[in-house]
Amino acid sequence: MKITKDLYQGSLALLTDFYQLTMAYAYWKAGKGEEEAVFNLFFRKHPFQGGFTVAAGLEYVVDYCRNFHFEKKDIEYLAGMKAPDGSPQFEKGFLDYLENLRFSCDIDAVEEGTVVFPNAPILRVKGPLIQCQLLETPLLNILNFQTLIATKAARITLAAKGEPVLEFGLRRAQGIDGALAASRAAYIGGCTSTSNVMAGKLFGIPVSGTHAHSWIMSFESELEAFEAYADAFPDQCVFLVDTYDTLQGIKNAIKVGEILRSKGKEMVGIRIDSGDLAYFSNQAREMLDGAGFPNAKIVASNDLDEYIIASLKSQEASINVWGVGTKLVTAFDQPALGAVYKLSAIRTEEGEWQPKIKVSQQTLKINIPGIHNVRRYYSQGKAVADMIFLEDQEVNPRGTVIIDPLDPTRRKRIMPAFYQGEDLLKPIFKDGKVIYSCPPIEKIRQRTKDQLGSFDKTHKRLVNPHIYPVGLEENLHHLRMDLVLKAKKFEDENE
Amino acid sequence: MKITKDLYQGSLALLTDFYQLTMAYAYWKAGKGEEEAVFNLFFRKHPFQGGFTVAAGLEYVVDYCRNFHFEKKDIEYLAGMKAPDGSPQFEKGFLDYLENLRFSCDIDAVEEGTVVFPNAPILRVKGPLIQCQLLETPLLNILNFQTLIATKAARITLAAKGEPVLEFGLRRAQGIDGALAASRAAYIGGCTSTSNVMAGKLFGIPVSGTHAHSWIMSFESELEAFEAYADAFPDQCVFLVDTYDTLQGIKNAIKVGEILRSKGKEMVGIRIDSGDLAYFSNQAREMLDGAGFPNAKIVASNDLDEYIIASLKSQEASINVWGVGTKLVTAFDQPALGAVYKLSAIRTEEGEWQPKIKVSQQTLKINIPGIHNVRRYYSQGKAVADMIFLEDQEVNPRGTVIIDPLDPTRRKRIMPAFYQGEDLLKPIFKDGKVIYSCPPIEKIRQRTKDQLGSFDKTHKRLVNPHIYPVGLEENLHHLRMDLVLKAKKFEDENE
Repeated sequence: MKITKDLYQGSLALLTDFYQLTMAYAYWKAGKGEEEAVFNLFFRKHPFQGGFTVAAGLEYVVDYCRNFHFEKKDIEYLAGMKAPDGSPQFEKGFLDYLENLRFSCDIDAVEEGTVVFPNAPILRVKGPLIQCQLLETPLLNILNFQTLIATKAARITLAAKGEPVLEFGLRRAQGIDGALAASRAAYIGGCTSTSNVMAGKLFGIPVSGTHAHSWIMSFESELEAFEAYADAFPDQCVFLVDTYDTLQGIKNAIKVGEILRSKGKEMVGIRIDSGDLAYFSNQAREMLDGAGFPNAKIVASNDLDEYIIASLKSQEASINVWGVGTKLVTAFDQPALGAVYKLSAIRTEEGEWQPKIKVSQQTLKINIPGIHNVRRYYSQGKAVADMIFLEDQEVNPRGTVIIDPLDPTRRKRIMPAFYQGEDLLKPIFKDGKVIYSCPPIEKIRQRTKDQLGSFDKTHKRLVNPHIYPVGLEENLHHLRMDLVLKAKKFEDENE
Repeated sequence: MKITKDLYQGSLALLTDFYQLTMAYAYWKAGKGEEEAVFNLFFRKHPFQGGFTVAAGLEYVVDYCRNFHFEKKDIEYLAGMKAPDGSPQFEKGFLDYLENLRFSCDIDAVEEGTVVFPNAPILRVKGPLIQCQLLETPLLNILNFQTLIATKAARITLAAKGEPVLEFGLRRAQGIDGALAASRAAYIGGCTSTSNVMAGKLFGIPVSGTHAHSWIMSFESELEAFEAYADAFPDQCVFLVDTYDTLQGIKNAIKVGEILRSKGKEMVGIRIDSGDLAYFSNQAREMLDGAGFPNAKIVASNDLDEYIIASLKSQEASINVWGVGTKLVTAFDQPALGAVYKLSAIRTEEGEWQPKIKVSQQTLKINIPGIHNVRRYYSQGKAVADMIFLEDQEVNPRGTVIIDPLDPTRRKRIMPAFYQGEDLLKPIFKDGKVIYSCPPIEKIRQRTKDQLGSFDKTHKRLVNPHIYPVGLEENLHHLRMDLVLKAKKFEDENE
């Protein structure tokens, strides 16, 4: 499947920040454009004050990179840009360079549906500086958003404790692809279906939906509206009961349920979209059971999120199916993930990789230098720790220590002999060629489930979760400390 | 310009909720599909607890409707959908109906850049029930988001008090179009430029940007990096000074500024992206002034929004240009507008328009029945009140009263003779044909400015704004009351 090709015509090479192009130009002018660099994409904090994050968006990334090129009209647009003095912004030689540019990077990334943690790379790009820079913005755009939504969906489906969660956020989503990509990520995170028919078609996601208040209002009475709906969909009736009066609506649904039954059909259930969902769902359950419809489902919707679902559960509301929209597809309580993309190494003219550090007044913002992978250790099927390590250094098989990048007093001893290790960054592109086959979305969704299953439930608590250990392998920790201190000394010399 | 055509291939007819299709099918089965209906699109509360909202997105809507049709592959997808018993979800006759469907509605809407208020329609669709239904979701998706972002941008630019606001949210935006549409709406709302080159190309918005921390890190020293950048862009140097140490960075910028000056060039300024912006901007101003660069601009960025900008202004920070990203393009503190689309009238078989009401346990959710327009009254160029009125009823030229839809004790006397009135809903489509020419984006942006200028500043206060009067014209108020009471009585009869 070619997602962006299906969605967007032609090239998306200009879907980047202008400063990537000005930097690319300046690199080109300085003769540095083909210098090789390594950039890591990672986030610094779990969203929603949670204890885990679910990676998503890689298939979009693969598609984006595979189709990466500047088209004639992109070049024409850039050729028309002017510097303040009226001269062309970019020299022709540079535009020719862009027109002939072919994607040639290596990309390693965690697979979609992988549970990931702060500071550990979820994607790594190795390649010519100019290409690495141009890719920064689109890769962040794609992975930031889809990872955010997959995580939100996982939290919501965890709160629903295995009951179906229907996503219907299209009308409040942030733009057209804000909706499509959200539906995809929500499914990966655990939702059961989407209302977005185009997402269903593009991504092969189950779609679902019944009717709206306007259906009811377009008839002379609610009863008449339910009957007409039952005529069209005798096997799929979920009656929306709150257009005029919820309790009366439930009675009308039961009436039509009885008519259906007299024809050998069963209504599926009812939906409540307003009012006190705990109260009305329990009333509905009682009325439906009393009328001989114990199997009729009760669907609830109305600004639901993981917290309200958990609260309704704790109140023993009689809800079987959860409809979520706005709060999920916009990640309402934290609508951006804030992942970043940082240079971590440059290859010198002599061919040596030189690790790079960015010091900051905020310790949180000091990057991790070098070329890393992330190894997850399992003990009896349960994830116990993630170790960020330098890819070109052997990890001591007799044991090592991982050190929290923000607090060097937090350490954990790793005895590889007792654990199973799995390296999370998998090769996706090699020299610009895809060497990874994106799995079908059902498999990705299953991976999310399996991955979440491998973590202790205390890490998945919605509020105040238990922190999962992630640390730098000793050698990497020392490299980083040395470089930070060197950089600080370097500054002193300048003062 | 064809926005969605440029962005998306083919038809977007499936970009809708599945329940619109099930309802369409059921209308078709019930022989009601061609019944004429009127739907209003409106929101119930200003976003961000503000006092105004700026409408945006109409050009997308025009493009969407103009290209509205089901393609063969859409029909094939729908034909492949199965009911629970394995039979096709939709009959072939209905699919033929969809395949032959041509957009034939009337649409009236407020122009982009119009300041709008709760409960008053910002768009009205009149046409066959099925088409009205299918359009609900995409129109909400488009207008909800762009209106939200234009409003956020207007708030931020108001806080910046005329100083340039650069939008660079692409990397944290919600999806690809979440970024593109946001850049467009942000420009309409008052931003000066975007970092998103593709938005620049598609919408003709100015783009801007200089360099990132990675530029600095890719050189042996900051000074060397600044010099190389100055070589490439001698007229456009805004040096990012906080990669290692902000004060040292400012010194290095000044050094390179002096080199530039020796070549007859001037640096444009510096950018600070971390740390205490009030402190460092004032330090920078002093250093730049002291070194003979009083015209060098200070650009600030780092999670800015209207509140932080207002706070920095009140602290007399020496910032001249404001860079905003995440908080703007995701409307971080309220990432969805929540506009709705409600049936307000149906034409009976006799050809009479019958106003429709939806009662609700929440008074806020009772709709406004009938076919309306919105008239804005001005006194000496200042907007004084908006009146929602029935389009087919003459407003008493000797005077009327407008009544708050939520609180009938809040009323305002309107004396048309003393005011200039302007009807805000303009004809956009007539019988499915566009009769409106979308203005260039510069004109839309200017309209926002002019419109905001026509409101008293107390309505534009960021916090706890003065409420602008919007009410139902007397006749409409009475119609609504009668229908609500009738609906409530109707319910009583059922109990």
